[in-house]
Amino acid sequence: MTENLPTLSESTRTTLRRKRERGAHDRTTVEAILDEGLVCHVGFAEDGSVFVQPTMYARIGDALYLHGAPANRMLRALAAGEPACVTVTLLDGLVLARSAFHHSMNYRSVMLFGTAERVEDDEAKRAAMTALLEHVAAGRSGDTRPPSARELRATLVLRFPIEEGSAKVRAGGPIEEPEDLGLPVWAGQIPLSLAAGVAVPDSGLADGVQPPSYVRSYPRRGAAPGH
Amino acid sequence: MTENLPTLSESTRTTLRRKRERGAHDRTTVEAILDEGLVCHVGFAEDGSVFVQPTMYARIGDALYLHGAPANRMLRALAAGEPACVTVTLLDGLVLARSAFHHSMNYRSVMLFGTAERVEDDEAKRAAMTALLEHVAAGRSGDTRPPSARELRATLVLRFPIEEGSAKVRAGGPIEEPEDLGLPVWAGQIPLSLAAGVAVPDSGLADGVQPPSYVRSYPRRGAAPGH
Repeated sequence: MTENLPTLSESTRTTLRRKRERGAHDRTTVEAILDEGLVCHVGFAEDGSVFVQPTMYARIGDALYLHGAPANRMLRALAAGEPACVTVTLLDGLVLARSAFHHSMNYRSVMLFGTAERVEDDEAKRAAMTALLEHVAAGRSGDTRPPSARELRATLVLRFPIEEGSAKVRAGGPIEEPEDLGLPVWAGQIPLSLAAGVAVPDSGLADGVQPPSYVRSYPRRGAAPGH
Repeated sequence: MTENLPTLSESTRTTLRRKRERGAHDRTTVEAILDEGLVCHVGFAEDGSVFVQPTMYARIGDALYLHGAPANRMLRALAAGEPACVTVTLLDGLVLARSAFHHSMNYRSVMLFGTAERVEDDEAKRAAMTALLEHVAAGRSGDTRPPSARELRATLVLRFPIEEGSAKVRAGGPIEEPEDLGLPVWAGQIPLSLAAGVAVPDSGLADGVQPPSYVRSYPRRGAAPGH
């Protein structure tokens, strides 16, 4: 019951200092963005440098799960307790104004702050790997060979809390200077969304294997609400 | 002449420790990814915390330009000399394997490290703002009212060097365990790209204003080479 969950905690890191009307801390908004995105960008420090690494993720309840090879630089740093910032951005469109200055983009983004913990329990690791597949395509985990014990050992799984953070949303058309409204310049929005192309089957599929429905018509649509 | 530019400098930060065949330091690859992307994720540290903030950008030659309000947290930190990591990620598709373990994504990403400098000169600021519009839609800067002196003053422009960094690319179908190849599971790729929807004109366009060609058919296609 998302509605009953507390809001995300605010801090000086998550309180918007500008354009506060674009900010949100309610879990419904935050979770909807996290559940639509496919890639997050993870920021962390190592040896005095900041790194920003893209990776896939999935949400279970009040946590995100990240996974990969144990030698992965980002996973190693986070597993060692390095604090991180995880950002998910959905680009919803271009906003073209009559003036150069007022051009913008429509987007929905979530920025989370926290410290990950390593998932050690095999069943919890399996649940996370299932969630990662289901996040990409609902139904996929039931169609595939599950991870073997060796594959499970070869996968580092991290749990990142959805606790401190905020969402930021811009939607709608351009905001113009009143004196620009009469200019003979086209202004408006160009909606953008992630679109699936025609699936490419792997060579050597077993005889009679047909594409499942999530492959024939990939369901994820990046269009913003109201578009 | 991109071909004559030196490769990006390598460092312990940019040398891939794993899957080296996915890495590239040549400028042609790096610039193609930067020129196709619309949003970068900027990582920086402030008061001991790492932040990852999405923002638009444009490339002129061997630098990226970022801009925004002078009060923007990220711009202020970078203008103060805080080192940053700028990552651009293009998601090209989902890779569905017969086993859960070998699922993956196709992508092209660039990770740059450096320290930005503030662009003070008015003409250089104007050039950066022109590049930001042209990056979004070629031809747009000639159609719009240019920035006024007041708007120029209200815009903080940063130059971020394209010097130290690397590209990473994954393309193609799943890599499977040989013993999985006979499983009755569909496997292959679902290509993903950023697609433009039907443009939404702003209310109150001046009489007779028609959408320019980049609005009628937005040219950016996120499809990976070879798709």
